[in-house]
Amino acid sequence: MTSATSFDQYLRTRRTQIDAALDSVLPAPPTCPPLIAEAMRYTVFAGGKRIRPILALAAAEAVMEDQSTDLCSHADLSRVMTGACAVELVHTYSLVHDDLPAMDDDSLRRGRPTAHVVFGEGIAILAGDALLTQAFIILAQNKPTDPPDAEHRRVRTIARVAEAAGAGGMVGGQVLDLAATGTGTGDEGALRDIHERKTGALINAAAVSGAILAGGSLATVEAIDAYATHLGLAFQIVDDILDVVGTTDELGKTAGKDATDCKPTYPSIYGIDHSRLLAAEAVAASRAELATAGLGGRLAEIADWVVSRTR
Amino acid sequence: MTSATSFDQYLRTRRTQIDAALDSVLPAPPTCPPLIAEAMRYTVFAGGKRIRPILALAAAEAVMEDQSTDLCSHADLSRVMTGACAVELVHTYSLVHDDLPAMDDDSLRRGRPTAHVVFGEGIAILAGDALLTQAFIILAQNKPTDPPDAEHRRVRTIARVAEAAGAGGMVGGQVLDLAATGTGTGDEGALRDIHERKTGALINAAAVSGAILAGGSLATVEAIDAYATHLGLAFQIVDDILDVVGTTDELGKTAGKDATDCKPTYPSIYGIDHSRLLAAEAVAASRAELATAGLGGRLAEIADWVVSRTR
Repeated sequence: MTSATSFDQYLRTRRTQIDAALDSVLPAPPTCPPLIAEAMRYTVFAGGKRIRPILALAAAEAVMEDQSTDLCSHADLSRVMTGACAVELVHTYSLVHDDLPAMDDDSLRRGRPTAHVVFGEGIAILAGDALLTQAFIILAQNKPTDPPDAEHRRVRTIARVAEAAGAGGMVGGQVLDLAATGTGTGDEGALRDIHERKTGALINAAAVSGAILAGGSLATVEAIDAYATHLGLAFQIVDDILDVVGTTDELGKTAGKDATDCKPTYPSIYGIDHSRLLAAEAVAASRAELATAGLGGRLAEIADWVVSRTR
Repeated sequence: MTSATSFDQYLRTRRTQIDAALDSVLPAPPTCPPLIAEAMRYTVFAGGKRIRPILALAAAEAVMEDQSTDLCSHADLSRVMTGACAVELVHTYSLVHDDLPAMDDDSLRRGRPTAHVVFGEGIAILAGDALLTQAFIILAQNKPTDPPDAEHRRVRTIARVAEAAGAGGMVGGQVLDLAATGTGTGDEGALRDIHERKTGALINAAAVSGAILAGGSLATVEAIDAYATHLGLAFQIVDDILDVVGTTDELGKTAGKDATDCKPTYPSIYGIDHSRLLAAEAVAASRAELATAGLGGRLAEIADWVVSRTR
């Protein structure tokens, strides 16, 4: 896609590509029982925004542009797409488990009943387990067309995605989030720690995976990592704001849930207006990282999109 | 350890080494919140038999012996030990999730209250998630001392462990097991499918990981895979028998639970005596695979141990 393609068109095209790729990497009978295949697909194809895989692909594009190659016509797209899908599978697993009655107890997600409502808790837990595991299955698959350093890049990606998902990342963030629920208060340091683990780590891993799998140099990968850190913060602040100002219908999930659950959020600490300012500052910082590293492509537009979105 | 060391002494030494290695690969604060570190350790250090990591190390020894090197004095031990630990972490995660109220609803495991009884369901689900993820974190970690083909062997190991754990393996087996619970009947084909996925796949992955990480040739890895398939079947038949003839005290888990849950098992289909015969046949078949491939070491003794155990 050329830079003349409108950003909306770009997002639509990428989502179509990502959905097709996700369909192809999910297991199906007779490899697995029909019920688990169905439960895995139920949440993966529930109208997600695909922010993380889009980010992975855009980071890869920025790397390719830096190397004067084009991801769209490039054989590397499928390799990068594997990383993009892996990150979306990890994200989807976390939604399925976080929504469970023993966790956030949410019955609505992306406008539909959550997995445990439809399939029961046991199958929902197992579907989450299988989605998480599937991410590593696809990342570890060798392809005959892989360039010589592909395994090295794949191991680095696995390490980064696993660290983002594990006890030090998303799981740790959810543990802290569960502990903070009901307290209603918290300082910004504690709130930021929760968000960096729970949301930020995987957003960083998404962007970094795209950059690594596209063959980016260490310096480029680091610049994209820094960009993604600011982007992840902006993303989470906007998420907190939308929970206050959005409607359940717009969001496709239960609005106002943070306040009901007495969770500390950016609006609860800073108010809506100041939170909007913090989000704008984070986006500016993310764009500044790109400018310093001379990285182009769609990454800057993605940063703008993340703050302007309404769901 | 020389072959003159008694098998009991061999098991004790290996367990001590494995426990020390597991301790070193588990995350700790400040990398992760204290509560999740504690919950992960609770089930990992609950007196498990360590059959899978012992099998991984023994497979590596057999490979080394084949190459006239000695694993005990070999720098490769730590690389193989990473695989052994990863497999035990995946096994432990599956115990934590399988014991949940929404699954097998078991409150006793290895003689202690299960993780969800101690930490609550939410933290138990997250501890399982983190244990599964930690397996991939440690398998993807590069070490400066790694030989040139180490990344290739690590990617193969990750693929094998992930496939054993995922929708086509352990998760799929648990889905079929949940569906079969309460029916009390089933043909041997269906029972074997459940067991191969739920228990067999990871036993194969354990042995194969040890063989791959120790530098085994494709032919040697295949022979060890075939050995482990028969061993896994013997292991599961004995597990089913012990559930009938053992006491809760001996087993460290609730005895007679299969019958209470109306689960199809080898004894429920074949009776105790014929089940014992089938287990002995499977062990003989596993030993025959070793003999054909000319593989020595402790693998044959492990096969004998698996059928003679009382817990």
